[in-house]
Amino acid sequence: MGKKIVVILSGGMDSTTLLYYALNLGNDVVALSFDYGQKHRKELEYARNTCIETSTPHKVVDLSILNDLAPSSLTRADQPVPEGHYAAENMKATVVPNRNMVMLSLAVSYAIGVGATEVWYGAHAGDHTIYPDCRPDFLEAMINAALLCDWHPITIAAPFLNLSKGDIAKIGKDLGLDYSKTWTCYNGREKPCGKCGACVERKEALTEAGFTEKEIKLMS
Amino acid sequence: MGKKIVVILSGGMDSTTLLYYALNLGNDVVALSFDYGQKHRKELEYARNTCIETSTPHKVVDLSILNDLAPSSLTRADQPVPEGHYAAENMKATVVPNRNMVMLSLAVSYAIGVGATEVWYGAHAGDHTIYPDCRPDFLEAMINAALLCDWHPITIAAPFLNLSKGDIAKIGKDLGLDYSKTWTCYNGREKPCGKCGACVERKEALTEAGFTEKEIKLMS
Repeated sequence: MGKKIVVILSGGMDSTTLLYYALNLGNDVVALSFDYGQKHRKELEYARNTCIETSTPHKVVDLSILNDLAPSSLTRADQPVPEGHYAAENMKATVVPNRNMVMLSLAVSYAIGVGATEVWYGAHAGDHTIYPDCRPDFLEAMINAALLCDWHPITIAAPFLNLSKGDIAKIGKDLGLDYSKTWTCYNGREKPCGKCGACVERKEALTEAGFTEKEIKLMS
Repeated sequence: MGKKIVVILSGGMDSTTLLYYALNLGNDVVALSFDYGQKHRKELEYARNTCIETSTPHKVVDLSILNDLAPSSLTRADQPVPEGHYAAENMKATVVPNRNMVMLSLAVSYAIGVGATEVWYGAHAGDHTIYPDCRPDFLEAMINAALLCDWHPITIAAPFLNLSKGDIAKIGKDLGLDYSKTWTCYNGREKPCGKCGACVERKEALTEAGFTEKEIKLMS
């Protein structure tokens, strides 16, 4: 048996791949998801189903306090409100100030609580320029904090930090992951819209990973 | 006008002194308190009253999720349960795993939300050996993380980090702080018990700060 690891699972492509990757290495994995808004409830359904399929214990934490403390960019005066419905949904869903510091902190608490020694999350190379709290220097500081926060050090790791979304999808492909069981679309409808930035990016990643057009259609 | 600062306020001696200290320097202060258990509701009343008296905006965040994620030492198998009622109350109230990482993270989110540039909290020299997440190295890592978590850096500061509780009480004395308006006792009764570790430590600090015996009696 490997290490006991808390994997932060959103239900999207990257974190779902990370869960499979961690399980495949023989680790004892528990999944932790955060609920802080509309879009993510849809993702959370997928996260829950993935955990059921892989028999992974799954904890969902209500993070609505975060929206209360720091409203997303849509209501912040220093950020332009993006035009168009999809872009607006996009911003609301993705730019939650200081999200990673809060999520990692709570995941470290959970790791202490369940006796895990590591916390893994799915930050990747494509995130660095969009989100300040996905930058490697930020991660390094959080790694240092987690090593010191308790008498037993907790190790934070982002195994995909230097990979592209396509690289990650390739890992998932090799592990036999069916990406139709992950959710990416910014819209919370029954089926992905296929048009928003996230859907386009997802399709590119699946193509880069070597899935056939037919497979990609089934996964979109 | 000074800087805009989020002060983490428990309602105890140290953080209340920190609030007065920050206000006295002419800063624009907002207070942030966390609610995560029995004892702290009593402290929170004192925090609220201090904010009313000083006309400081006050936000209280429900942190009950933290107890859910990582039960306090009383329910952890790797920690001996201390003997005696007061000691047990003591442990329950004070040893919340990874409390500071979570509180600082949420305070940083709040700082971003209200446009503050700094987060201050009341860790002091006496805490270092009791709480791993009060050690200077831990704080340094969190400082680095907060500088990188957003496009605008947030500065975390613990101005009392190298002071004793007595030193802090001396600062409060010089600022004219009435310590009867702070709460320290581990028990949540109407009046402090005067016997628990916190009450004893409080009395020592007030003595060290130069308050007269009569004043200390009124403040206990």
